[in-house]
Amino acid sequence: MKVAKFGGSSVANATQIKKVAEIIKSDPERKFIVVSAPGKRDSNDFKMTDMLINMGTAYINNENYEEYYSIVLKRFKDIIDELNLSSLLLEEIERSIKQTLFENVSNDVKMDSVKAIGENNNAKIISAYLSDIGLTANYMNPKQAGIIVSDEPGNAQILPESLPKMYSLREQEGIIVIPGFFGYTNKGKLVTFSRGGSDITGSIVAAGVQASLYENFTDVNSVYTVNPNIVDNPKEITELTYKEMRELSYAGFSVFHDEALIPAIKAKIPVCIKNTNNPDAKGTLILAEREVNDKCVSGIASDTGFCSLYVSKYLMNREIGFGRKLLHILEDEGISFEHAPSGIDDMSVIIREHRLTPEKEELVIKRINDELHPDTVSLQRGIAVVMIVGEGLVKTVGVAHRATSAFYNANVNIEMINQGSSEVSMMFGIQAVDMDKAIRSLYQAFFE
Amino acid sequence: MKVAKFGGSSVANATQIKKVAEIIKSDPERKFIVVSAPGKRDSNDFKMTDMLINMGTAYINNENYEEYYSIVLKRFKDIIDELNLSSLLLEEIERSIKQTLFENVSNDVKMDSVKAIGENNNAKIISAYLSDIGLTANYMNPKQAGIIVSDEPGNAQILPESLPKMYSLREQEGIIVIPGFFGYTNKGKLVTFSRGGSDITGSIVAAGVQASLYENFTDVNSVYTVNPNIVDNPKEITELTYKEMRELSYAGFSVFHDEALIPAIKAKIPVCIKNTNNPDAKGTLILAEREVNDKCVSGIASDTGFCSLYVSKYLMNREIGFGRKLLHILEDEGISFEHAPSGIDDMSVIIREHRLTPEKEELVIKRINDELHPDTVSLQRGIAVVMIVGEGLVKTVGVAHRATSAFYNANVNIEMINQGSSEVSMMFGIQAVDMDKAIRSLYQAFFE
Repeated sequence: MKVAKFGGSSVANATQIKKVAEIIKSDPERKFIVVSAPGKRDSNDFKMTDMLINMGTAYINNENYEEYYSIVLKRFKDIIDELNLSSLLLEEIERSIKQTLFENVSNDVKMDSVKAIGENNNAKIISAYLSDIGLTANYMNPKQAGIIVSDEPGNAQILPESLPKMYSLREQEGIIVIPGFFGYTNKGKLVTFSRGGSDITGSIVAAGVQASLYENFTDVNSVYTVNPNIVDNPKEITELTYKEMRELSYAGFSVFHDEALIPAIKAKIPVCIKNTNNPDAKGTLILAEREVNDKCVSGIASDTGFCSLYVSKYLMNREIGFGRKLLHILEDEGISFEHAPSGIDDMSVIIREHRLTPEKEELVIKRINDELHPDTVSLQRGIAVVMIVGEGLVKTVGVAHRATSAFYNANVNIEMINQGSSEVSMMFGIQAVDMDKAIRSLYQAFFE
Repeated sequence: MKVAKFGGSSVANATQIKKVAEIIKSDPERKFIVVSAPGKRDSNDFKMTDMLINMGTAYINNENYEEYYSIVLKRFKDIIDELNLSSLLLEEIERSIKQTLFENVSNDVKMDSVKAIGENNNAKIISAYLSDIGLTANYMNPKQAGIIVSDEPGNAQILPESLPKMYSLREQEGIIVIPGFFGYTNKGKLVTFSRGGSDITGSIVAAGVQASLYENFTDVNSVYTVNPNIVDNPKEITELTYKEMRELSYAGFSVFHDEALIPAIKAKIPVCIKNTNNPDAKGTLILAEREVNDKCVSGIASDTGFCSLYVSKYLMNREIGFGRKLLHILEDEGISFEHAPSGIDDMSVIIREHRLTPEKEELVIKRINDELHPDTVSLQRGIAVVMIVGEGLVKTVGVAHRATSAFYNANVNIEMINQGSSEVSMMFGIQAVDMDKAIRSLYQAFFE
């Protein structure tokens, strides 16, 4: 019994939805279908969810929302027409959008309900189409499915106790189509997940029904060993562990929304990334464990947008609590840090640049000076992080040697190395301007 | 105007003291002489300070102290006789030892005074000998010199306000011989520094009198680029910065007692390591700044006795304060840590093994489990730390490459790399059993 989730580009128009239907039809194990809102049809297109946010915001601010409304409705009409579905369905959708928009509720509640319009009605359309081509399929609202969440609009969290109750969904007849991106509180209020939250819905359903596989259909054949925007035609990854995936996605691999997989991972459900446009491609399988072969590096990820806060003080390592106090100042100011490598008399803290606005920067540096009396404190922006990821990597002699050789061959200075804290990755900090050439050189060293 | 400090082996017997006198005589700038207690005359010998500790302990415990007393006195007698000094001096020394030993004071106070007997009387002997060979030289007690310290027996700290007052010592006539290792509180109580504290006295005097140079005479020609017990005849280091020295001494270079140089460093006094047995050798000069040449690595230090506490938790990096809380537990238990490299979902804390007794280990791991709910927590002992130290190292492309190549060539797995937190060093964690071969390979890579 599988859960298949289809992303925005997989359900962007009738042509795509027909592909989705073929995929569902081809494997009777695909019982639970989770769908996104219609995504972009081409690179100049809009995502329906963006349009819905515009519409909701305009309505709340008493501005002109009608234009957005027409665009949204037209998009649904096009899909319904091209799929040759009954116009009654469009009328039902129109009614439901109007009701959501005009309902007399608080702005928070209205906004979350408006944002959910895309997924909700796309699920109705796809369910109708599946029935139309002869499959037994039913739309199921997340409330009915038992997706009960915390009351945090735009950032709902699944309530753990709701998962076991979902197991009985396996008994339902036929294919069940569930809209992604939202759930309901115990009091019955609609609340959305964070953006990209259809992955979360899929993950929750997979965990709840104890699926044998959670298939995540998107528009790429697989996860690649390196960013295809930097290296042409990079090798595909066939198998990854959860840990590897998390480390890769941390540094720029936009495979999954950060927290999306938690429910599936906790339930140890294997996850497969597949391509709606090329469903025969093997895809990338993500597992709790995998066999480690001699090629110990799985992928190389990289991301810009980091900065480094450097603090030095003579005899720092004899001052019990120095590191703790420094991290406490950051915590106090609500700034989470990424890494904090420390030397004997020095400590660096790597932070996402956007977390340290110029005002926060000034405040943090002032507090460090006032409270810790360091010899120096400084901030360097424009840092890129490069992660070399692979199970078994830390126990393999020579990986650091190959990696640093690759940086050297590309004439890139390594500002920071952090190895040994994680068992599956090695992290390097370099100047952001050097990132692309460093990545190409690393790819050559490990994959060519 | 220079301060010259002579270590235990440099003043162990009459032969050595004659060398010291020659050194002092050869440079009229050597005005302030700081001396240790007589050290070992050969590898089977004892240090006088150890004998004094035995004597004091025995006396306090009402045990037989006379044997130690005789050994101490005999040692002074031999030196005085061989230097052909007046027997009146020996009588004075004998009187003073007895007075110190039998004085009716608390055990703490007595112990510190007993420990100081070696330096104090050696200074009197050396001063007498310098006068005897025609130099104008006077013994000066630390109280008279203005070395006013905190009331922490065995671990005195210089009071910063006492330093400026010492400047007037420059006006004194002739050579001034000051015993190392102890000072006096504001109330006039004798208190010793931590062990090896004659270096501290020299450093304090150099800072106080604003010396042009602090010469530290010992029994090696210089600081070596690597431990001579691991690599035969290693290259000598001619210049080091304070920072480099500190990083080298951290990981096993026993050049200086950890805190000894603080006063000299704060006053930016250059420090020179010289050999009493070969005073013409250039030695190693330690400075605030030095010109960085193309050979950016100054030295390679290594030390065993570390352990690594590993903690992993899924989504750790999104949990604000996780790292801080972990370090807080260690602080709470009085365990200072060396480094704390962190990954995305993992954090390692490197700790000196002796700080983590099996009982503390159990307690700390229990607290981490109870308070932080990690996925895993484990401790690995038997780690060695290797430090590659050099100004300019972090800005030089290819250093990491050469270093990791050396580990690879020696077939040594790198468990941990910490680079970028310090501006002058790169740190590696390896299995202690691999240390010697790794060091030999690194030496070859950087110095041959």
